[in-house]
This record gives sequence, structure tokens and C-alpha cells, in this order.
Amino acid sequence: MKRLLINIKKLVHVEDQPVPYLRGAEMNQVKEIANAFLEIEDGKIARFGEMSDLHGGDIAGVAEVLDCEGKWVIPGLVDSHTHLVFAEPRAQEFEDRIHGLTYEEIAARGGGILNSAAKLADKPEEDLYDEAMTRLEEMIHTGTTGVEIKSGYGLTTEAELKMLRVAQRIKRMSPIPVRVTFLGAHAFPPEYKENKEGYIDLIINEMIPAVAREELADYIDVFCEKGYFDLEQTDRILAAGVKHGLRPKVHVNQFNAFGGIETSINHGALSVDHLEVMNPEDFDALLKSECMPVALPSCSFFLSIPYTPGRELIDKGLPLALATDYNPGSTPSGNLLFVWSLACIIMKLTPTEALVALTHNAAFALGLEKEMGSIAVGKRANLIISEDMNSLGHIPYHFGRNSLDRVIINGTDFRHLEP
Amino acid sequence: MKRLLINIKKLVHVEDQPVPYLRGAEMNQVKEIANAFLEIEDGKIARFGEMSDLHGGDIAGVAEVLDCEGKWVIPGLVDSHTHLVFAEPRAQEFEDRIHGLTYEEIAARGGGILNSAAKLADKPEEDLYDEAMTRLEEMIHTGTTGVEIKSGYGLTTEAELKMLRVAQRIKRMSPIPVRVTFLGAHAFPPEYKENKEGYIDLIINEMIPAVAREELADYIDVFCEKGYFDLEQTDRILAAGVKHGLRPKVHVNQFNAFGGIETSINHGALSVDHLEVMNPEDFDALLKSECMPVALPSCSFFLSIPYTPGRELIDKGLPLALATDYNPGSTPSGNLLFVWSLACIIMKLTPTEALVALTHNAAFALGLEKEMGSIAVGKRANLIISEDMNSLGHIPYHFGRNSLDRVIINGTDFRHLEP
Ligand SMILES: [Zn+2]
Ligand SMILES: [Zn+2]
Repeated sequence: MKRLLINIKKLVHVEDQPVPYLRGAEMNQVKEIANAFLEIEDGKIARFGEMSDLHGGDIAGVAEVLDCEGKWVIPGLVDSHTHLVFAEPRAQEFEDRIHGLTYEEIAARGGGILNSAAKLADKPEEDLYDEAMTRLEEMIHTGTTGVEIKSGYGLTTEAELKMLRVAQRIKRMSPIPVRVTFLGAHAFPPEYKENKEGYIDLIINEMIPAVAREELADYIDVFCEKGYFDLEQTDRILAAGVKHGLRPKVHVNQFNAFGGIETSINHGALSVDHLEVMNPEDFDALLKSECMPVALPSCSFFLSIPYTPGRELIDKGLPLALATDYNPGSTPSGNLLFVWSLACIIMKLTPTEALVALTHNAAFALGLEKEMGSIAVGKRANLIISEDMNSLGHIPYHFGRNSLDRVIINGTDFRHLEP
Repeated sequence: MKRLLINIKKLVHVEDQPVPYLRGAEMNQVKEIANAFLEIEDGKIARFGEMSDLHGGDIAGVAEVLDCEGKWVIPGLVDSHTHLVFAEPRAQEFEDRIHGLTYEEIAARGGGILNSAAKLADKPEEDLYDEAMTRLEEMIHTGTTGVEIKSGYGLTTEAELKMLRVAQRIKRMSPIPVRVTFLGAHAFPPEYKENKEGYIDLIINEMIPAVAREELADYIDVFCEKGYFDLEQTDRILAAGVKHGLRPKVHVNQFNAFGGIETSINHGALSVDHLEVMNPEDFDALLKSECMPVALPSCSFFLSIPYTPGRELIDKGLPLALATDYNPGSTPSGNLLFVWSLACIIMKLTPTEALVALTHNAAFALGLEKEMGSIAVGKRANLIISEDMNSLGHIPYHFGRNSLDRVIINGTDFRHLEP
């Protein structure tokens, strides 16, 4: 089935020669076509160009023509880092923290990651699935057209596998591409507080083999941080994951920089995520690699911690991707349009650089660069269409607002998709 | 006509003994009713209480019953500081600034307040009205149920009166209460660059008398700031306004603290707005007054400037109101739900304190405290109804998201209001 978008004011980030990702100054130099058309066939981009190249005969056999006058057509956004499956929001904990309650008092009232784990263990898979799908639907309305989902609130083999099964069901049922990451190494469960080696052993010898056997994940992740998993533990867990076919995407450098980036790169990591704190050696390690640095500015916003030095990464010639980190503790938001605003307003990326970080480079960080992330023939027709606007900056400039006219998933207006 | 809201999970900020505003610790101690009902008659709050006090006979003559199970009913938000009437957004300028263009280059490309003034002078009143009404409608969807509109992009007598006429037309036509503020003293027009006294003279002897004669404004404002209007000029302009019946609401202490708060208070100011930079004497002056301090955190967010020390103001026993400062240059957002998030996440106000600052105290800052700002019999039934939630913090915690189920204006669901 053919669909045609016509009179597009600007078609942004058009690719003739596919490249896996853009780095440094390239992120600001994407190709655009003014006054354009775009043809969709069987959910994929079939053809695009200037309106003057569209002829009467091109309309033959077209099921739907959408007039995009005044509007911009942009590649759909990709969220390469989320913890979308969780038992419940933690708004009470947010309030308690403002009231000055201590960590222990908050935990006693049901807050913190270990309580999240307890609640997840108790919640039926069906409810976890329903609630995560509701969140995903909301995310699509703010432009998300591809997404990663991590485990990590299980912390027992049984509960981790349960989370991953929920994520796999979302992967099967979702209209947008989903990739699943195993994050058993998110925190040490209380029963292993005095026996950390026992939990590492459980991850390596029981969880990872089970995840691989049941094909429940695409990637492996570790929360490499002081007080969580140290460098040596991270190294062993990533090695075990790689051995079972799980490529690393790693939480590193959120509060402390102690070599997690290099260790991740040594295991062929697809991405290293967070990077709020960076040493000179971290930049060097990235420059020698093909690993994608991923910034999570909504987490910095919510926790009032430093932002990833995205400007510096790009200025040093590195690539950058942006994601939400959607989770109930540190980032209760799956809104990539707000991430776009933070990237421009706080991190001082240009609207174009931030767009590349949210599309092309984010697709790479999720292993989806062959099927989405730019406007190219054969790629999935996952697109966002802006309201009438004069510059790309219009979208991030209007922070806290949804400036999209519509979201197209596999060639179809998302509002018209069957549930 | 009677309407009834029933099974309300929590009815928040109920007032038995009306007070004009809340200060210090009072802002955290508002009265709530769990499992409540609320009766609306002729667009006003007629009665409310616990569901157990609602009897079968109370349903007689009720036109509509709305079941609010799981939902919270909250006073409608009030935006006491906006520049809602303007010619066009300035997204291009936002982009240019990120690209590192100088102020002069930006002005040459059509940015800055003086270009806003030039564009406003050229735009027909009809268009200014239509576009401002579209913005207002969007604001109501994020909970705004009362609003201030300032002039200040005119900077000639003719254009200032034109802006005020547009604001007055909005006041007549809007379903929510509107108050209008004359801000001729927003900047010095280029033709008065070498003759500042000439512009002061124009404001005092021509603009203010004309505004008063045509009854075009409720309040007077001055941008009291280094490089704009100094203390002595502010003093004279406010005095002239007061003489013509215009009470001051003043832009002070955004970048520099040099006595603007005390001068405003000496002229009986209803509010002083911005306050990002505060001296010890400023706190003292406020403590001796009945003047409302107004914080504008979305402006701090967009400009990356310090936030108003709202926590400190409240901890010193002062009141506080919160508003957007919606304008195309420094705050392209009219979203009070996002202001609520910034107040809690960045300024560390509790969700309840921030709610009081957005309702009761904001209504006072706009002279509307007798008709709105709390749940009290006889007040306007301008209410926001949340989605199903467990704590008030749910709304600001979910930043960049609209957690409202609906907005009630004069007793009617806003989505059902006739255009
Ligand atoms: Zn994360
Ligand atoms: Zn202002």
C-alpha cells in the first residue's frame, strides 16, 4: 500500500549514502530538502525528493495523500535507554525527599530500588505488561518510535526472567521496534549484602545462561558505580554476557569516573550511558572506539546532578546519542521532546545536533541504524511531523510542550493504529 | 444549574476561614478532605464536604454528576505574570544564540525586544488577539484558570494602547479571569537612546493618562534593572501610575539588587516579580510589607540564570507566588504544571507549598483572592482534576507531562465549553 506526504516545508536529515552514525561537526551538517514529498510503501520509505520532481502519474495507486503544508517531516525519535517495566511510580519518595526524610526513613516508607524490586516480584506479569504498554503509548505521542527496555528491578533469577518476559511480550506486541537489555547487575539484593561474590556468581552462572537459553535479551548492562558494581565485577559480568552473545550497553560514570568506559569498550560495548563525570582518559578511550556515548539529561534535571558534557564530546569529534533513562526513581519521564529541550537549553547543543543524537545516533546505540534513524529509501517509515513552524529550533524552544502535529509509525498515523 | 463532583479521593486546600494569602509554614499546612463531594451552582462552589454527609436528597435538581473516583480535586492554577500578547515566537533567535551569534548579529537577524516591538507595531490587532487566545487555550489545558497579561512590546503610545486593547478584548472574551498590566517601561526605544528623560516623560505625561482615561489597565509595571529603568525612574513612573489608579506589580531583582523591592513597596505594590538576586535588606523590606514575592522559575530554566530563593523566602516566614513569565524572548512556555515541577525539583518547595504558590498566593498577586485560589463556598468553580493518583507530588514528579484528567472553568468541563 502506498501513501504520499506532499508539500513538506522541510524534510530533515535526508541520507543518500548511509553511514552508521554521525560524529563531531557532521552532527550539525545534515541534509535537508525544502518543499518536498515522501512516498511510503508497505510501511517503508520508498522515495522522496523535491515537489517539482513529483508528477501526476505518481499519484496512481496511492491510498492516502497527506498535505504537510507548513510542516516539517523528521525521522522518528529513538529512546536507547529506558527502565520502562516497573511496578509503580515513586512520587511519595520524591515528596519525602523534599521534606528532608533520610534514606533510611524513605526506605522504611517503601522507597528506593530494593522496594521497587519487592513490589515488582509481587506484581502479576499481566499488570506489568499493561502498565508498561500504557507508558509506551504515551511516549509515542511525544515522538518515540523505537525503544530499549532494561530489566534490573528483579534481582532474583525468577524476577529478572519475569521482567524480561514482559519486555519480550512488549517487543512482540509493540508497533515500534524494541530491544531488550538484561540488567541483573543493577544493585546488590539485601540477602547478598555480606556476600557480594555470591550475587556475581548467581548472575554469571545462573541468570546469564538462563537469559541466553530462553533468548530473553539482546544486550547486557551493569551499573558500574561506587557502592554498586566495581570495575573488576563489571569486567567479569560483561565477559560472561559476551560469551553468551549479549553485547554490552553499560551504565558508567554517573557519579564517579574510574575506568568503566575503557572496560566497557574492551568488551565491545555498543554504548556507554550516563557519563556525567568524565576523566581525560575517558575521552581518549571513546575517541579510539566505535562505542556510542549516551547522555541522559532528564536524569540530571530530576536529580540536580551535573549534565553529561555533550558539547565537549561533540567538539572533540565524538558522536553523541540522547535518551530518557525513564525509571521511577531518578527519571519519571519518557518524554524525548523534553530531552531535546534540555539538550539545547542546558547542554547547548544546536537543535540539529540534538536531533541527530535523538535519531541516527540513538538508532546506532540500539543496533537499529539499518532500519531507522534517518530519511533514507528502505528505512522504516517511522516519522514525526511538526506543527507549522519556521525553524527546527521551534520544537526544543517550546519546552514542556508537544509541538508535533502527528507521529507516523510504519507509514500509518499513530492515532489511527488499531490497538 | 447544579453540578456535583462525587467520590473525590482528596479535595485539596479547603478554606473555612478565608485569608488573603498564606505565608511561611502555613503554605505547607492546607486543609484537605478525603473521600469528598463538591457541589457547584451557577459556576460557583456551593457546598463541599465528606461523602458521608451527602444524602439522597442532595441529588435532586442536579444537572450533572461527575464521579471522581481515584482523582484529586484542586483549586485551578493562576498565572499572575505573563506577556501573552506578542507578535511572534523567537525560536530562530534561540538557535542563533546556541550557534554563538553575538547580540548585534541576532538583532540584525530580527531578534531581541526591539524587533519584537517592530513586529508588534506591524501586526493587525485581530491577529494579535487570535494568536494570544490560542496560547491562552493551550494554557488552560495545563491548568491555568486565571491570568495576567502585560503590555510592553509597543514602546510607542499608539502600540502600547493597541496591545492593551487586545488584552482588554481577551479579558472580555476569555472564560477565565484576566487582569491587565501596563508595562510601557519595558525598554527604552532606540529613538530615545540618547534622551531617556524624553521617554520617561512620554510614559508619565502621555501613556499613563491615556491608559487611565480609556480604562485599559488594572496595574502598572516597570522593568527596574541596570541598563533599563533605574531606581529614580522607577519611582517616578510608579508614582504616576498610582496617581492614576494603577497599582504596581514590578519586575525587580532579575540580574541586580539595588533597592527596587523597597521602592515598589513604598508605592503599595501588590507584587514584586523575578527576585533571582536578593540582598538581606530585600528580605527585610518584604517581611515588613503585604507585598507578594513572585518567582518565575521557567525564565531561570530557559536563560540558565539563578532561581529565585523560594525555599529561603518561605523559611523566613514570607509568602510566595509562582508564575510563568510567558514571553517569546526569555520564557517560551505558558505551562504552569512545568512551573510546579521546577518549584519542587529545583527550588525544593514541597508539592503543597508550590500548589499554594500557584493558587491562593497567585490569586492574591493578581487581586483575585476573593474570587478564586482555594476551595471555599462562593468562590468561582475553577478547578483542576487530576488523573488517578496517590499523592499530590504525582503531578510535579511527572515533569514534562500533563497529569490532569480535566480542567473545570466556571463549573463546566473546559473541553465542553462553547467557543
Ligand atoms: Zn538507567
Ligand atoms: Zn516578565
